Amino acid sequence: MITREDCEDLDRKDPLAHLRERFELPEGVIYLDGNSLGPPLRGVRERVNQVLDEWSQDLIAGWWDREWVDLPLRVGRRLEAILGAEAGSVICTDSTSVNLYKAVGAACILVEGDILTDRGNFPTCLYVLESVAARWGRQLLVVDPEQLEDAIHPGIGVVAATQVDYRSGRRHLLEAITRRAHLHQALMVWDLSHSAGVMEIGLGAEEVDLAVGCGYKYLNGGPGAPAYIYVSPRWQDRISNPIQGWFGHARPFDFSPQFVPASGIERMRVGTPDVISMAALERSLQIWEEVDLAAIRAKSESLVGLFIDLVAQELSGRVEVLTPLDPARRGSQVSLVLDEAGRLISDLAEVGVIADFRTPNVARFGLAPFYITHTDVFEAVAAISKLV
Amino acid sequence: MITREDCEDLDRKDPLAHLRERFELPEGVIYLDGNSLGPPLRGVRERVNQVLDEWSQDLIAGWWDREWVDLPLRVGRRLEAILGAEAGSVICTDSTSVNLYKAVGAACILVEGDILTDRGNFPTCLYVLESVAARWGRQLLVVDPEQLEDAIHPGIGVVAATQVDYRSGRRHLLEAITRRAHLHQALMVWDLSHSAGVMEIGLGAEEVDLAVGCGYKYLNGGPGAPAYIYVSPRWQDRISNPIQGWFGHARPFDFSPQFVPASGIERMRVGTPDVISMAALERSLQIWEEVDLAAIRAKSESLVGLFIDLVAQELSGRVEVLTPLDPARRGSQVSLVLDEAGRLISDLAEVGVIADFRTPNVARFGLAPFYITHTDVFEAVAAISKLV
Repeated sequence: MITREDCEDLDRKDPLAHLRERFELPEGVIYLDGNSLGPPLRGVRERVNQVLDEWSQDLIAGWWDREWVDLPLRVGRRLEAILGAEAGSVICTDSTSVNLYKAVGAACILVEGDILTDRGNFPTCLYVLESVAARWGRQLLVVDPEQLEDAIHPGIGVVAATQVDYRSGRRHLLEAITRRAHLHQALMVWDLSHSAGVMEIGLGAEEVDLAVGCGYKYLNGGPGAPAYIYVSPRWQDRISNPIQGWFGHARPFDFSPQFVPASGIERMRVGTPDVISMAALERSLQIWEEVDLAAIRAKSESLVGLFIDLVAQELSGRVEVLTPLDPARRGSQVSLVLDEAGRLISDLAEVGVIADFRTPNVARFGLAPFYITHTDVFEAVAAISKLV
Repeated sequence: MITREDCEDLDRKDPLAHLRERFELPEGVIYLDGNSLGPPLRGVRERVNQVLDEWSQDLIAGWWDREWVDLPLRVGRRLEAILGAEAGSVICTDSTSVNLYKAVGAACILVEGDILTDRGNFPTCLYVLESVAARWGRQLLVVDPEQLEDAIHPGIGVVAATQVDYRSGRRHLLEAITRRAHLHQALMVWDLSHSAGVMEIGLGAEEVDLAVGCGYKYLNGGPGAPAYIYVSPRWQDRISNPIQGWFGHARPFDFSPQFVPASGIERMRVGTPDVISMAALERSLQIWEEVDLAAIRAKSESLVGLFIDLVAQELSGRVEVLTPLDPARRGSQVSLVLDEAGRLISDLAEVGVIADFRTPNVARFGLAPFYITHTDVFEAVAAISKLV
């Protein structure tokens, strides 16, 4: 029997407990939707206002004097630490969907063969992959998530998948799938939108080829924050960005009519970086410098495990846990299946527990380790139990 | 002989004079680089901070309760008025380069034939057009700007040009070129980055097919502000976005694995809209509701004419005016050619006149009608004359 006191005890021992105060969160709210939109960190407001001051004082000179022009690489450097990526391998630019188009398009320029993905991929990824397949004249193969690894065989050129399923919280085995892709000479493209920031990823160590992800979920960059793209240093000088734009040029300010790609990751840029929003994301990522990812993942596993144990204790037989029970196979969220999931989510909001609903019958609970406590989990499951 | 008093007199009669106070501009600066980066309007800071408040108070619910989700269309509506476009034909999304890729790619899906542009096009447009030509297997023809109209002949599928040349300030005859494109069954795609906001454009009346443009020049949306895309209502239900993404879906929040394009202009969206930056642009565009474009253009022509007349008076023989002398053939900037252009621009900055330099020998002076006065023009030319 897990009690509220047990949870309070876990919170007292939590090495990340002090980080909750860094977030601007409304009083009395348990926010379990940080997997959709992370809350603002204290300091982001000041950073955004600083950029507005720079704009009004320095005007055009802000690009150099205030180093706006370096923002995409500066944000990239912070992301490299979070993603376990090599120096100079990540840049902040565009939206996740546009970056996935560039990444998989670039992969299709490098290799022949079909594109493989799975039905558990986020819908926008499936739509983008359809676009790339049509444009590059490749077949798009879509299999069940459980079959993704086995479906990689000779003839597949690119495997594109999302590490953590937005719906169920199921986590793909990035290492095994990447290894199998390479065994068959396929390139591996990961979407990290639902995993970045809450677990160790090791893009470099696992020899991932390309990756993309969004800035507004666990990375807390703000609504619609700019996204990022990763290219392994192995590919950086051979890769072509399928959307050539001036910020991907070796010398954009020469205004040359001939396109010469920038060396390194900068060639994956396209247009002018969005300074105001990117500065917000830059500030949001600062918190990862204070704590290592192993500790973040440990807290995340503790919250997710506790949530599932409490559901078993309080709600046995009344809901189905969609999220895998093996910790290695899940992200930082728990999804429950129940007939009245939509109503449950609205009723929970009435009592200050914010989570979300995915049609037709899934209730999702994001457990962001920086600002969710074990006691929050206890309260949330108690509220669910009362309402179901 | 034009005197300072003449200029002060013109300013006294200027119906737009009161608008200068709406901008946050540093004291003692004459800002002639609004064609690169417009200055902030008063009220933008408040609007951005309001969005930051909404984010911290409403979290995920902000998308609906604060109508963030409608921002791209709301900004689009403001742009429709500025561009002379039909209701529901403009949406704010992505960067200009990505939008041009989508626009010209979509045009290539609709029609066969080569892509025609001119050497005066902005470099990023040339790079993007190269990407599209390569991907869609079309030839890219690049002619001199003066030959663009005549170069439109059967076999051209898409004509893509920038209305006002960033370098010289030369303005293409949008009406004549669009008409000739249609005569030969080609689609016409305009980049309005250097013209939107300072002249009447009439996308609807001129039956332009597609257009794109940036938010951070004369539209004052902020450094790297989101861009926009226009699709004529004639094409909206037949056009395919070459980058299918979830915000271009008819029902993004159904999370369906099948892509069904949204009806109307929304199908040109791709990823999640960037709320913080888009809110800044939305607020910046409000000023156009107060004054009509004919008055804005009249002021712009008056400033540009005065600048050129003063250059003739003060600098005759010492510099070359690159900008056409016919008002119908120019935008809202004046470009001068002189050997020491780079040094002139740095020296001008020392005395508070901000303009810019394009290699190897062009000095550009943007004359934004909302916040530049005739006296500013007098002072600027006097400073140039002293330094050259």
